[in-house]
Amino acid sequence: MVKSRSVITPWKVSGDVNYKKLIKEFGTEPITEEIQSNLKKAHPVLRRGLFFSHREFDLWLRDAHAKKKVSIVSGRGPSEKMHIGHLIPFLASKSLQEIYNCNVFIPISEDEKFFVKPSLSLENAKKFAEDNILDILALGFKPGKTFILRDFSNSKIYEWSAKLSKLITYSEAKAVFGLKPENNIGWSFYPAVQAAHILLPQFVEGAHKTLVPVGIDQDPFIRLTRDKASNSALKFIKPAAIHGRFLPGLKGEAKMSSSDSEGTNLIYLSDSPHEVKNKINRYAFSGGKDTLDEHRKHGGNPDIDISFQYLKFFFEESDKKLQKIHDDYKSGTLTTGELKAYTIKKISSFLEKHQKAKQAAKAKAKKFMMD
Amino acid sequence: MVKSRSVITPWKVSGDVNYKKLIKEFGTEPITEEIQSNLKKAHPVLRRGLFFSHREFDLWLRDAHAKKKVSIVSGRGPSEKMHIGHLIPFLASKSLQEIYNCNVFIPISEDEKFFVKPSLSLENAKKFAEDNILDILALGFKPGKTFILRDFSNSKIYEWSAKLSKLITYSEAKAVFGLKPENNIGWSFYPAVQAAHILLPQFVEGAHKTLVPVGIDQDPFIRLTRDKASNSALKFIKPAAIHGRFLPGLKGEAKMSSSDSEGTNLIYLSDSPHEVKNKINRYAFSGGKDTLDEHRKHGGNPDIDISFQYLKFFFEESDKKLQKIHDDYKSGTLTTGELKAYTIKKISSFLEKHQKAKQAAKAKAKKFMMD
Repeated sequence: MVKSRSVITPWKVSGDVNYKKLIKEFGTEPITEEIQSNLKKAHPVLRRGLFFSHREFDLWLRDAHAKKKVSIVSGRGPSEKMHIGHLIPFLASKSLQEIYNCNVFIPISEDEKFFVKPSLSLENAKKFAEDNILDILALGFKPGKTFILRDFSNSKIYEWSAKLSKLITYSEAKAVFGLKPENNIGWSFYPAVQAAHILLPQFVEGAHKTLVPVGIDQDPFIRLTRDKASNSALKFIKPAAIHGRFLPGLKGEAKMSSSDSEGTNLIYLSDSPHEVKNKINRYAFSGGKDTLDEHRKHGGNPDIDISFQYLKFFFEESDKKLQKIHDDYKSGTLTTGELKAYTIKKISSFLEKHQKAKQAAKAKAKKFMMD
Repeated sequence: MVKSRSVITPWKVSGDVNYKKLIKEFGTEPITEEIQSNLKKAHPVLRRGLFFSHREFDLWLRDAHAKKKVSIVSGRGPSEKMHIGHLIPFLASKSLQEIYNCNVFIPISEDEKFFVKPSLSLENAKKFAEDNILDILALGFKPGKTFILRDFSNSKIYEWSAKLSKLITYSEAKAVFGLKPENNIGWSFYPAVQAAHILLPQFVEGAHKTLVPVGIDQDPFIRLTRDKASNSALKFIKPAAIHGRFLPGLKGEAKMSSSDSEGTNLIYLSDSPHEVKNKINRYAFSGGKDTLDEHRKHGGNPDIDISFQYLKFFFEESDKKLQKIHDDYKSGTLTTGELKAYTIKKISSFLEKHQKAKQAAKAKAKKFMMD
């Protein structure tokens, strides 16, 4: 893996990421073992530590265990077809919805991507929104407890955003988000829309504790919104957040991202078994040794092996099986070829089911929409 | 009348106003006699020259006479109860609707006033909107050809504004509107909403010539929107505009305005006959002489007499009668007391009818709304 200077803003993630340093920089809290003990039955993204940092997740859990109303917000800026890295917050949300039976709100920010990407037309942003919504619903969120809001079709979001916008000066937005004078005025307004998304459950159902699973790069939005939540114009309470690590790209890049336009660093949710096989075999960074002999003798390193990371955080449900793969790979019993073959099988099987569920979601999407 | 430095921005009008200089400053065209000849049957605000400047009104008239689709946009930022000065663009719009049988679009910018006025709550902005809509409908706009859009309840306005916002950089909005870093980000977004309002008929019905009757202080919005209208993301045509003089305040201030918080410079649409009588008698600036003897001898000056101005632009339909009042006042036959008494009678009669029509509008307001 190539080391490079780490750059984390809501619009750009690059270089290698030191997560401990990020907790200090962003002023968040590490997810402790005590918190982690609540997540033993959760999806691997939660129970195997992909989420490493939080704000008041302990208070959200306390309210959830006390049977007080809690909710989750997990949004998506639709500028492209989705890859597996995009699923992280939704897998966490869906898992917590199952455990705590809470409402999940899913704001789709067609506007954000339209404002930020010069070449993206509004019409295409909306097409990606429609496609992405089906990918999200394919995960199996509960009907009647899951609410999708699209910024370009909900009739209340502008009013809620306007309410927030009056509490945020341009100076403040500029300082937090690095706005430039040559950016368009939609972009300068967007922090208010994002804040309205984070507070969406409280706009709809009154003050209660909300949890936002996000990449750590989105924390400036969370921090700004927490500052505004209790303003007398709103009377809400501060939303909690959990911050995910980035899912590494196939070649070991810090974040799986479509800014690699050739698609050699990511796995799309629409990839065929053939594409998965090709990508993992050709590109997935290996923690194995250079020759089979050396590997058998010295073993591989699962902690830097991309196939193993994908199994760990996504595709291997069984803790026992994962442990065995880890140990066998480390000892050299399991080869890179065998590990890749197993990973290909698991990913393909996941994607096949996902793609069927996505087709089936078309018929029921309408009933999840907040108009 | 006290002379003071003239300040004209979309947010502030003060001092005395030199309209010829404004035409030059804003780069607009004067309304010629040829244009004026089309307005002989129009409401006094149009036929007696309250509108003094335009952009492409001649082209709008050409299309109207050629029976091509034309429309009108006339908006209102509801931050208070309305006074007679607020009616000017609506009286012009209604009159042109009658003559040319065209659609009128009325955007209600609850958001603008909320962003700009620190003490105005969103809830109160919405209450003023509801009240102001009834005042506007009381003028008798045609059902089925008149469409009212509220920024906080229409489900398309945010999308249309977003589309415009991508074409406007913060620098540009700052230069045109004098935005300051300490202004809120709703305010910095608002130029896009205003542009969407001006283009509303074209968003709804495709490219055609629209006319916007506005105070000259609103021309920066018109100019910016004309610049953007033909952008390839929109493919609209440049909207036309006519620019009104400000209705002077009772004491002869350049603009009737509620920033005089004691209400001694304006006549509210809700004023009772008693209030009208009291205000005109006590405050209306007189062009008459100091004593009755002097007045009888030298005559008064109708051109600076506020009562006469109100009769001229609003309340005296008959050109013949107006001419007689003008001549009699100038010669000294008509005294200030008599002129005021007649003005009081005309205003009270207008307001009495208006207030009844406003009550009646409650039942039919819903069918004018664009949702």
